[in-house]
Amino acid sequence: MIKIIVDAMGGDNSPVVNVKGVVKAVNEIKDLQIVLVGKAEELTELLNKEKYDGARLEIVNATEVISCNEKPTEAIKNKKDSSMSKGYELLRADENARAFVSLGSTGALLAGAVLRVGRIKGIKRPAFCPILPTMKQSLVGICDSGANVDCDPAWLQQFAVMGSLYMQKAYGVKNPRVALLNIGIEEEKGNALSKETYALLKNTTSINFVGNMEARDLLSGEVDLVVCDGFNGNVLLKSTEGACLELMKLLKKSMMSSFKSKIGALLIKKKMYEIKDLMDYNNYGGAVLLGTSKTIVKGHGSSKAEAVYQCIKQAYNMESNHLVQSIAESLENE
Amino acid sequence: MIKIIVDAMGGDNSPVVNVKGVVKAVNEIKDLQIVLVGKAEELTELLNKEKYDGARLEIVNATEVISCNEKPTEAIKNKKDSSMSKGYELLRADENARAFVSLGSTGALLAGAVLRVGRIKGIKRPAFCPILPTMKQSLVGICDSGANVDCDPAWLQQFAVMGSLYMQKAYGVKNPRVALLNIGIEEEKGNALSKETYALLKNTTSINFVGNMEARDLLSGEVDLVVCDGFNGNVLLKSTEGACLELMKLLKKSMMSSFKSKIGALLIKKKMYEIKDLMDYNNYGGAVLLGTSKTIVKGHGSSKAEAVYQCIKQAYNMESNHLVQSIAESLENE
Repeated sequence: MIKIIVDAMGGDNSPVVNVKGVVKAVNEIKDLQIVLVGKAEELTELLNKEKYDGARLEIVNATEVISCNEKPTEAIKNKKDSSMSKGYELLRADENARAFVSLGSTGALLAGAVLRVGRIKGIKRPAFCPILPTMKQSLVGICDSGANVDCDPAWLQQFAVMGSLYMQKAYGVKNPRVALLNIGIEEEKGNALSKETYALLKNTTSINFVGNMEARDLLSGEVDLVVCDGFNGNVLLKSTEGACLELMKLLKKSMMSSFKSKIGALLIKKKMYEIKDLMDYNNYGGAVLLGTSKTIVKGHGSSKAEAVYQCIKQAYNMESNHLVQSIAESLENE
Repeated sequence: MIKIIVDAMGGDNSPVVNVKGVVKAVNEIKDLQIVLVGKAEELTELLNKEKYDGARLEIVNATEVISCNEKPTEAIKNKKDSSMSKGYELLRADENARAFVSLGSTGALLAGAVLRVGRIKGIKRPAFCPILPTMKQSLVGICDSGANVDCDPAWLQQFAVMGSLYMQKAYGVKNPRVALLNIGIEEEKGNALSKETYALLKNTTSINFVGNMEARDLLSGEVDLVVCDGFNGNVLLKSTEGACLELMKLLKKSMMSSFKSKIGALLIKKKMYEIKDLMDYNNYGGAVLLGTSKTIVKGHGSSKAEAVYQCIKQAYNMESNHLVQSIAESLENE
């Protein structure tokens, strides 16, 4: 049985989507146990409408919610009865609890991870690793995407090792192709950080390092994991998401602008939905925090129930494939 | 009369597109004089097919071409008879020559700018400023996009001032909204560089600083200039271009996959071309190098004739609106 703590609050559509996602997870995965943390009365009311195995879903009451505007460290320390603080407390205190899933404040989740859970021995910094779908139906991870904005080369080397293990354990990618984000593909290109990191990655035998990657090739499907500092990773992730979103909006607007194109739009509607579906993060789970001693998954704030389910499934996969242990062992072998 | 040197070689479609672009520029702009540098025999043959005012278009022979794979500084120093080296030599030696346009190697163009042209007095580092079309029919500049991969906050402050003047002088943007690229919009967000730069920009009275901008908002049209170091600017620019390109490819492929969607595609063809046109850099000119004592414009390697014409027009606008002098004066006023 794998026990996962789920923060029921904190997302844009919480707790409704959290409850639905959790129920789906309990129904689909038979050796999964969930502790749902949040406003008990509200949660009970929502759960009363659902069918599931009650023995594997428990509610723990927490009356407060940490918002995205609060200072992360203070919020975790002071709001003891918030769903996130309490969730972390349960994760820390219960030896059997192995993962935490939340749609709440990224900053607070990161602060809680450091304060309440701690790093795997030898890991210099935990890093966020979100994933994106590529044009070749594969997935690509970005590590780090924002947990560490100023980095040492040795941290990036660990991001590469952790991210590579993650793509293997959570998504079954064999021998993941790991690339370093850079402004050109030649070895000598880049800034001080990327040049030093290149030298380290070239000599890291536990990963399949394929060299530098330019930002324009992120979605090409030629790479399974991109390594970068958290500032660059954030720019890479958000500009890609932003460009896709703006272009789709423009397309929609443009197709609605004449009678002829409206008919055309009707005929390609199914294909457009397929593309929208392909790009929808709700189908792929959340950004995982790698390097902490228990598994932590951050879902998108605007997640739907399906995304919550995917986040739980992702945490379950990581735990049943022993990702944390693999990362710990990889450090012993260095 | 404004005299502009044009490198006839170095692009993917050179010298054919260069010749056509130059002829269009000479025909459209009456007080423009062009010096076209490249393989004279080839150029003469191409020009013989065109109609233009011969008194304002002169050829200077250069037998070599610098490729993108050559080491920039060495190429500029050693390939004396290359179109780029010779173009720079003409720019330096001829007091009346005020701008240089090239589609060739970015690295060599930058090296030549530093070695042969030099900076405006007081400018710490020249920076590349390409522009992109936004979803609100406006343009947004990115400064720096790759000339400086490791930056001091004071350099970014100058990028902001130069870029703001550029958007005014080259594109007539009044009181350009200048934003700092960051991983969140709050003042305290970011890495060491962005925090220090924020403090400087806040107190720079000559610009209209609107605060931090996240990468996802680049194409929103809410900002006219984004300031960042060259590494992040490169990631921002290339991931945006890459995402748009991959998504358009996916759309095309998807629409060709069934009979029904093929008919739909026919009906929205015109709209798709409008969008392709909107996103086509050929319509907007090249990336300008700001901070050098003469104007330098880098066109895309795969430019068509229209893009070459736009690059020349852009250089002409900058020169007729005295951008270099304005930048020099702005430093005196600091």
